[in-house]
Parts: sequence; C-alpha cells; structure tokens
Amino acid sequence: MSPHPHDDSADARELARRVGEAMYAADTASKDTLGMQLLSCEPGRATMRMAVQALHLNGHKICHGGFMFTLADSTFAYACNSRNHNTVASGCSIEFLRPAHEGDELTCEGVEQTLSGRHGVYDMRITNQKGQAVALFRGKSTQISGTVIPTDDAAASSKTENHA
Amino acid sequence: MSPHPHDDSADARELARRVGEAMYAADTASKDTLGMQLLSCEPGRATMRMAVQALHLNGHKICHGGFMFTLADSTFAYACNSRNHNTVASGCSIEFLRPAHEGDELTCEGVEQTLSGRHGVYDMRITNQKGQAVALFRGKSTQISGTVIPTDDAAASSKTENHA
Amino acid sequence: MSPHPHDDSADARELARRVGEAMYAADTASKDTLGMQLLSCEPGRATMRMAVQALHLNGHKICHGGFMFTLADSTFAYACNSRNHNTVASGCSIEFLRPAHEGDELTCEGVEQTLSGRHGVYDMRITNQKGQAVALFRGKSTQISGTVIPTDDAAASSKTENHA
Amino acid sequence: MSPHPHDDSADARELARRVGEAMYAADTASKDTLGMQLLSCEPGRATMRMAVQALHLNGHKICHGGFMFTLADSTFAYACNSRNHNTVASGCSIEFLRPAHEGDELTCEGVEQTLSGRHGVYDMRITNQKGQAVALFRGKSTQISGTVIPTDDAAASSKTENHA
Repeated sequence: MSPHPHDDSADARELARRVGEAMYAADTASKDTLGMQLLSCEPGRATMRMAVQALHLNGHKICHGGFMFTLADSTFAYACNSRNHNTVASGCSIEFLRPAHEGDELTCEGVEQTLSGRHGVYDMRITNQKGQAVALFRGKSTQISGTVIPTDDAAASSKTENHA
Repeated sequence: MSPHPHDDSADARELARRVGEAMYAADTASKDTLGMQLLSCEPGRATMRMAVQALHLNGHKICHGGFMFTLADSTFAYACNSRNHNTVASGCSIEFLRPAHEGDELTCEGVEQTLSGRHGVYDMRITNQKGQAVALFRGKSTQISGTVIPTDDAAASSKTENHA
Repeated sequence: MSPHPHDDSADARELARRVGEAMYAADTASKDTLGMQLLSCEPGRATMRMAVQALHLNGHKICHGGFMFTLADSTFAYACNSRNHNTVASGCSIEFLRPAHEGDELTCEGVEQTLSGRHGVYDMRITNQKGQAVALFRGKSTQISGTVIPTDDAAASSKTENHA
Repeated sequence: MSPHPHDDSADARELARRVGEAMYAADTASKDTLGMQLLSCEPGRATMRMAVQALHLNGHKICHGGFMFTLADSTFAYACNSRNHNTVASGCSIEFLRPAHEGDELTCEGVEQTLSGRHGVYDMRITNQKGQAVALFRGKSTQISGTVIPTDDAAASSKTENHA
C-alpha cells in the first residue's frame, strides 16, 4: 500500500525513518564534511543537530551563515523526502536572527506547511542550546520521478528490519 | 580620507582588495572546509570559485544546495564588506536552477544592487564551467560598528604594501 | 504600565484591539480601495478577510497576486504594530499555491514567529472558503520611533472606553 | 515561425507589444483599480508606472507596500508572458528601501534574469521621480499551457494590425 501524502500511520512513520537512514548514510556533505546528526525523520518532519566547531567559522570567527543555511537545507531535504518520493529544493530563504559561536549546539526542526500536487513549502527553525531562535528558513520543494529507497523494500518496511 | 560608499577610485579598489585578502586569510569555512578561492574583491563586488568535490555531495550524489548557498553567501560577504565597514547578512534567498556534479567548477559573481544608509541588497549569480546559470542568490546586508581591517592601516593602504 | 513585548495580558489584548481599530480607520488602501475587513488584532497576531470581486481581477480573470500579497501585507502590519510601537515592513516573500476566483472569500491569519530587539518575523497563511491554502507569506519587520496611538491614551486603555 | 525563447527579433518584439496590449486591456486590477500605465512590453522585459494617489495610502498615510508589490508583480506578469506562453507567478519577494508618498511617481522596470525550461526568474526595480530606488522585487515564474493571444493571430502579427 502506497502511503497517502498526509498519512501519519505507523507504516508511514517507519518508511520515513528508513528513508532518513538511507539518505543520511550517503550524505557526505551533511555527515562527514559538516558533522551534522539526524535526530529524527518523520512524515513531513525532520530534526537535525550540529555542534559549531572551528571548521564552521568564517572570517569574523562566527559560524558561517552558509552552514546555518546548510543545516536547515539538509533538515528540509529529510522532511520533504520522508514519504519516499524523490524531492528537490527549488528555492529557499533564510533570516538570520543572531550569530552562533564555536561550542554552540544548533538544533533545527522542520515541518511541512503545505503540500499540494508536487509542490510543498517547509519551515525550519534553528535554535541554540539556550533555546534562542538563531535562524528561520523556508524551503520550496518539487517532487521529481523516482523513490529514495526501492519501493519493494518500502512495501516490506514494516515487516522486515532493513540495514541500509 | 574615508572612501565614499560609492567611491570606485584607485584607493577604494586597493582598500577592497586588502579587505578581501584579510577576510579570506581568516575564513576557515570558505577556504579550508569547502575549498573556495577568492578571485576578486572590488568596491561593492566580488567573485569566488569552488570546484565540486566528493566532500560537497549530498545523499543524491550532487552538490549539496547548502554549499551552493555558502559559495554565494561568502561572495556576498566579500562584496558587502569591501568598503571596510563591518557588515553582516540579515537574510538571503536562493533559487536553484540546475544541479552541479562532482568535477563541475562553479563561479559566483556578486554585485551591489542598492546601498542606502546601513542597508544593502546584493545579487549573486552562480554559473558552471559551461556558462550555465546554476543558482541566483539575493542577500540583504546591515552595517554594524567597526572595520574589517584597522583604519590607520586602511589610510596607508595605497602607500605601503601590507601582508595581512 | 508599558506592555512587555510578549505580554498577552488583558491590557495587552485591549491595547492591540484599539491599535487595530485606529489603524483600520485610517487605512484607505485596505478598507476602501480593496474592501478588506479586519477580523481581529491581538498581541502579535491579526486576521483579515477579503471577498474577491471584479475589481481584484487581472488579465487572466483571477485575483491579482498583488492583492493576495496586499491582504497578507496588511494583516502583517496589524500583527506587528499590535503592541503600539510603530513598525514597518523591511521585506516580504510570498508563495502562491492556487488561484482565487471572483466570489472566493479569502481569510488571512498571521502570527509572530520571532521578535528580538527591533526585528521580527511574521508568517501569514491565506485560505479560501473551502479551507484550502491559497498563499503563504513571510514578513520581516523593523520597529521605528513613535507609537500608533497616543501612549497616555494607551495607558488609559483598560479604564476608559475610547472611540478612535 | 514560433519565436525562440530568447529571440529579440522584430517579430518577437511586435508579438511582445501585442501581448502586452491584450493583457492590459483586460487587466482591471492594474489599470482600473490601481491606475497603472503600461509603458512598454518587450521580449522578457516590461516597464510600468503608477502615480501615488490617496487611494493607495495606508494607515500611516504612505503608499501601501502591497501596492508597490502589485506594481512590481504586474510588471513581472507582462515581462514573463511577453513571448505569448501563458505564465504564472509561483513566488515573489520584495525588499522595501524607502517609503513613497502621495504625488510620487513610481516607475517599475523589469527584466528576465534566467529562463530554463518552464521556469524563469525576473527582477524588478521600482524608482521614484528622483531616480531613488524604492523597492527591489524578484519573481519566479512557471509556464502553463496555452497562449495569451491566439497563435494564428500571433503568426500574423507582423503583417496585420490587430486592435485587441
């Protein structure tokens, strides 16, 4: 059974978890280059975390805004691919609210605002370890053809454990 | 003599060049983590380049959109700080036009669209080695207090060579 | 007592209601030119409505996107001025999700996402009479000097009824 | 001969002029409600003008930001439909740089930045009668099916005068 776009059943949640796991395993940029962790991937939602390290600092010795964007953009990618339809970003905007410094721990939570046809809008909020909002991000997504993980595999997702 | 915001004299150009050099020397994120080169920093303008490598790839094995954003955001930073007033990004938007693959060479050119008081708008265009537009970025800047390089030093900029 | 930015007390709610009433009385563009109604103005929130009429139609005979934007921009103005600090929009973005036709009734609900210092971010959602999302809008605000209604008057707001 | 997307031949220019004329004739919102004039419609470009009148003023007695947006959004519509493919806005952003007052004359010039496949990006700049930038707008367009004016008619466009 193919999940309905707004399905939040146990099957849909299990599928989202496995899509997230498979994407993260292959996501060199987020995982290896920038050191992000995927905390959760649910239908239409995701949460990631990134501790600000020396490698993230720009010429002002604060976290490069591009890496805050990248944290949000990755979280957006997990949220909008979570139903196992290949989906890409068409455009994004970000508002920077306060700087992040080395040692800060940034958490990004993202949630689907709307999905109609192949187009969606997703909002991300990055907060620091004090719970202060650091940046707000809005992403527009477009579904393309194909699935993130094989659909047979997806169909089997609630029955068999799969180590992607 | 402090340069006028829209001054494009030889002094202003030399100042921009030296500001860019000083920022780039300290810009771990752009230079070391992502491997960008600063090609030029002029009054209100800058150009950077980034060759797409394995470290830039996301789970779809294309260049992470966040790193295209970061290339544009860095170029924006050089352009809006080029007159030696400390300036930060308040918000940015990006439109993704086509993917970039490993081996592609991305060039980002940015130019000031408007600067009134402490607020500016800058447009960046990323193209690949075929000259195709890959992304368009717009950044909003706000000047804060302070200078990027010491102003005495800046005053002396056209007389003495400085190795930042 | 001057209301705290995030105060949602009875005083703050009464102040917001009176600010909204005063702004709406003078708002020729929203009220007279486009025919919007102000349904509510609360601390950091507002709701407006506009029935799509012939005067709103563009060359494709659908509601001009600029008037959907204007509905959202007005709602944003009421929400961000609701604490009686003069506040202006610095920039806005809108995503158009589906067209609106003559006879449709559009409702716009807006809510503050963040307010730190003089800068805020507000999100608006426009829905039609079927509850379908028609557009999503995000506005960035900046407080300037002055108040919307006199502060003596504001101080007296919970004691005396005022017919602005 | 169907014009190439980037064709700027005499035929393409004549087609753009006639598309603009036909759209404007039916554009109640821009023409009748807000009082805009269409100054030119060329392949990928357009220029419009709006004199700020009492009907445009908001509660602060300045031109409603929504009407500045609408001026830009209309100009965008003429520019992106100028090649006679029905085209709609998917999303837009605007930066407000300075207010406009009653009696100001606003001119909006718009130009295509990129068009690949069915998707385009267009930039608009609104200036006042002193040549000062008042707002910058960026619009994203999507082509849909159909043409603005009949294509037989379009084919005949350089031969016969047509009064739409």
